Amino acid sequence: MSDDFGKRISIEEVEEGTSFTPKFDEKGLIPVITVEDSTSEILMHGYSNKEALLKTIETNQAHYWSRSRKKIWKKGETSGLNQAIKKILIDDDQDCLIFRVELGGMAASCHVGYKSCFYRSLEGKNELVFTETEKVFDPEEVYEGQDNPTIL
Amino acid sequence: MSDDFGKRISIEEVEEGTSFTPKFDEKGLIPVITVEDSTSEILMHGYSNKEALLKTIETNQAHYWSRSRKKIWKKGETSGLNQAIKKILIDDDQDCLIFRVELGGMAASCHVGYKSCFYRSLEGKNELVFTETEKVFDPEEVYEGQDNPTIL
Repeated sequence: MSDDFGKRISIEEVEEGTSFTPKFDEKGLIPVITVEDSTSEILMHGYSNKEALLKTIETNQAHYWSRSRKKIWKKGETSGLNQAIKKILIDDDQDCLIFRVELGGMAASCHVGYKSCFYRSLEGKNELVFTETEKVFDPEEVYEGQDNPTIL
Repeated sequence: MSDDFGKRISIEEVEEGTSFTPKFDEKGLIPVITVEDSTSEILMHGYSNKEALLKTIETNQAHYWSRSRKKIWKKGETSGLNQAIKKILIDDDQDCLIFRVELGGMAASCHVGYKSCFYRSLEGKNELVFTETEKVFDPEEVYEGQDNPTIL
């Protein structure tokens, strides 16, 4: 892939300019917050790299870098839970992206079976309570034979 | 600070349990997505560490780890733009947090002067367009004499 993103010339241009100059960290990654466009609900937090970002822009389908599987991952490849890009936003110093997406398949995003990965909130100091109580799908069925991406 | 968070015993407990067991990366950091509680607008993406997270929980005021200044940073310390915690959420594998906050001061969050750090969206492949067009405050006045945290 010969395409590339612009050079980061000055802080002023990065913060106040109109050139898309994403900053990849020392591992070549940039964090992505994925939001359901129609509801503004935060679905997940993942990572992209240069190649995954170019693929996302070219195909209008969200691609990520899987840190556990160490490969580019087209969201929905296994599960059918794809994410069509409606809008991409970038932050002030251009080191974080938001993908606003329309969910395909069963309209969920999380590999555990919930719609959003953020299905628990903190109560007090140590206890989590579920804010989503029903799973949208059965992960054992959808991801049959796949490794769980969660790392202890 | 002698407090600590729980041990990550099993994937099942991390994903489906009710113990708060945040995972800090090899630098001791965990990403935080900050959202305005009343509007669900994403304001910023930052990082916390164990100490900043404990301070956040204890004081109910958002604290972060500043990667550029390499220190704990109570949001609003300089600017008055503090963030009162309304709710903390955590994702499936417990390696990312959401702070739902109420904004203090001039009800903005971004050091460039906008309400949200995500004030630009991608048009086509390379061009950014502003989605927020008016600054809420003048950063030169609010952050007079402070270094800009953006790193090229």
